[in-house]
Amino acid sequence: MNVDIGNALASVASPGVSRESLERLDNHVAAAHERIERGMENQAHGYEALNLPQRTDPDEIRAAVEPIADAETLFTVGIGGSSLGAATITNALESDTETIFLDNVDPEWITSHLERVSLENAAINVVSRSGTTAETLANFLVVREAFESAGVDWTERTIVTTGESGPLRELADRHDLPALKVPDGVPGRFSALSAVGMVAAAVCGHDLEALLEGAAAEAETLSGSLFECPAYAYGATAYALDERGAGVNAMMPYAESLETSAEWFAQLWAESLGKDDLGQTPVRALGVTDQHSQLQLYRAGPRDKLVTFVTAQEGTDRQIPDTDVAELSYLGDATLGELLEAEFEATEASLAAAGRPNVRIEIERVDEYELGGLLYGLEAACVLAGELYGVNTFEQPAVEWAKNATRGLLGGGEFEEAEAVADKTELRVER
Amino acid sequence: MNVDIGNALASVASPGVSRESLERLDNHVAAAHERIERGMENQAHGYEALNLPQRTDPDEIRAAVEPIADAETLFTVGIGGSSLGAATITNALESDTETIFLDNVDPEWITSHLERVSLENAAINVVSRSGTTAETLANFLVVREAFESAGVDWTERTIVTTGESGPLRELADRHDLPALKVPDGVPGRFSALSAVGMVAAAVCGHDLEALLEGAAAEAETLSGSLFECPAYAYGATAYALDERGAGVNAMMPYAESLETSAEWFAQLWAESLGKDDLGQTPVRALGVTDQHSQLQLYRAGPRDKLVTFVTAQEGTDRQIPDTDVAELSYLGDATLGELLEAEFEATEASLAAAGRPNVRIEIERVDEYELGGLLYGLEAACVLAGELYGVNTFEQPAVEWAKNATRGLLGGGEFEEAEAVADKTELRVER
Repeated sequence: MNVDIGNALASVASPGVSRESLERLDNHVAAAHERIERGMENQAHGYEALNLPQRTDPDEIRAAVEPIADAETLFTVGIGGSSLGAATITNALESDTETIFLDNVDPEWITSHLERVSLENAAINVVSRSGTTAETLANFLVVREAFESAGVDWTERTIVTTGESGPLRELADRHDLPALKVPDGVPGRFSALSAVGMVAAAVCGHDLEALLEGAAAEAETLSGSLFECPAYAYGATAYALDERGAGVNAMMPYAESLETSAEWFAQLWAESLGKDDLGQTPVRALGVTDQHSQLQLYRAGPRDKLVTFVTAQEGTDRQIPDTDVAELSYLGDATLGELLEAEFEATEASLAAAGRPNVRIEIERVDEYELGGLLYGLEAACVLAGELYGVNTFEQPAVEWAKNATRGLLGGGEFEEAEAVADKTELRVER
Repeated sequence: MNVDIGNALASVASPGVSRESLERLDNHVAAAHERIERGMENQAHGYEALNLPQRTDPDEIRAAVEPIADAETLFTVGIGGSSLGAATITNALESDTETIFLDNVDPEWITSHLERVSLENAAINVVSRSGTTAETLANFLVVREAFESAGVDWTERTIVTTGESGPLRELADRHDLPALKVPDGVPGRFSALSAVGMVAAAVCGHDLEALLEGAAAEAETLSGSLFECPAYAYGATAYALDERGAGVNAMMPYAESLETSAEWFAQLWAESLGKDDLGQTPVRALGVTDQHSQLQLYRAGPRDKLVTFVTAQEGTDRQIPDTDVAELSYLGDATLGELLEAEFEATEASLAAAGRPNVRIEIERVDEYELGGLLYGLEAACVLAGELYGVNTFEQPAVEWAKNATRGLLGGGEFEEAEAVADKTELRVER
């Protein structure tokens, strides 16, 4: 990916960061890069994620999915990092295989999917490192039963990605299911370029080698200066802007195919950096759609936002047909792609004209190679930002409370958190 | 809708609002309510939106859609307020009619929809008040041509919702298309309960009367005190929390069917209140999914957030099958609905335990009546918040710049904004 941080400079925007401040910050980037390199060398927890382009074996993934490679529909049962990376890849790329991500426990929604799909032509990809994630296991039990009720042998149609032990690993052993391992030292939100993110891509027939090669090329750019490394340029600029008041980061790709990437980014950024009362709040947006929804706020609301654009330079296009309406004749001279590009440039300039900071991330086109680079680059940006904030990028301790409370509420053991639920302070206003 | 603001009180959360402060604020609510009532009586611009439950004629809408009521797929061509209200309603409710919202100009995405759908069984719902919205008109020209290429007479399969004049109105007159009017004085983001939002619902066979009755029941609750009106309780609390530092409002429904309502809310809140450097930034979230993505940040990041939950009390449910894994046996005693409910209560309590403000909005179930009440209630909350901020709730002047620049870039006239685009400040870091 290429990054243009010109519109984040203090000469353009407020908040903005001056060139001099960026140069000072670059000393911290150099030190952070050393820590990151050492972490990668030592395969330290979290940093190991940046080694995935070398570690992941596409042949192993393809061999594991072989029994279900004929699936017309693939249910991926997983939540958070066990779903978003895979969804980002398969939603970005075209395939004849339908992919459904069961990342919520809504009964009506699950049922409607199970009723609509021809289960004899479907397969299941269940993903949970611990093998105990309540939502994922509940959904898997439901889906498995639906396959059984439809007369389909689920043991022939299920692939498991999980840790070395736990209920899912035992299940895979007992039923001789193809099973892949969640790599050690890689938190879920950083696992897109492992089996966690790539099983669905393999079933869809995408080019796994190109994904990893694009990521490896991005890894090559990691260096001790933000002025030489696109990923660090982005991470350092986002951090510097947050320090200067831009507590919100609106991720706004200009391509429908990249819509899920903004969701994936939102988890990466929120769960990695949101701790110790620090961290920029990611907002998922989409160009051009959100010009007609969020742009008013971005341009004229509080000066607390960085807008991050992601744009692809090339793609297939489509002519806008001519019209005899004079007022609209300018459209007939253009393609939809040209309209999209003009809207992007206009929106970027409209924020700059209002002194609102924004950054442009460019990829060549939406394909496996460029997507691998984008995912890797944003992960490296996040790791750098975590170093600059000084937070523990790779943990997410604040989610444990609700997990314990849920388990306690459902009778899965004694948890003091469950008791707190009953003590809720109420101030009800009713219709 | 019912609202519980207990977890937004200063006794629970920081930032939080004390009961005494709410009582003082209630004087302003009383004054704001008088202005709102006067605006409604005078059918003043914007306030007129709150009269829609009385003004909208469901028979007129049903009569207009009659020629296309047999459609298996309905393309709604519109963007922003011309799409999100309709999408919120049809995505919330089940129907045999497939609805596709063409609210972006991405060429690959449009083409994939047009290639997949059987156009002889499809219909077009084109929505633009001015009849000149570039994205909508470009998409309409593309869709119309695709219908022609498929040998389908688009003039038999198109319904128009637009203003009294303009290119779309002329088109409807020339081809004798069924045409409905965007109501005067109602900004797009407040038009869900007019033809703009209800044509798609009518084609899907939803109960339009119930939508309006639910909204009318919510309108009945508008009164001079936030302690007696759920909509005002929500709007006043959100405003008070923003004043106290909660500049972000994460809207988190606990139902897949309400996912689009968070997008609709994001436009309502952002475009109405985001001006004069004021306005709370809406963030779209989804329970339980985002517990595994955003909860870490909401609970342990900066104290700048209100989390708004929306939860439905009733719905169809589904038993989680039993398992012989001891560690997971607690799941087999529960339903998916019970798991969803426990996760919601646990998440709400986990935020309260960390002193993070949150509000609960309850509806009885996801049906037309309750949905009408929810949409109306949130609109009224937004109008009240606008009064308290003292902004012009019903305009969106900051989006004009980019519209002019886009038009200029495409050769649609001379616009100084287009010239500014070429002057972009660059600081590029390339791979």
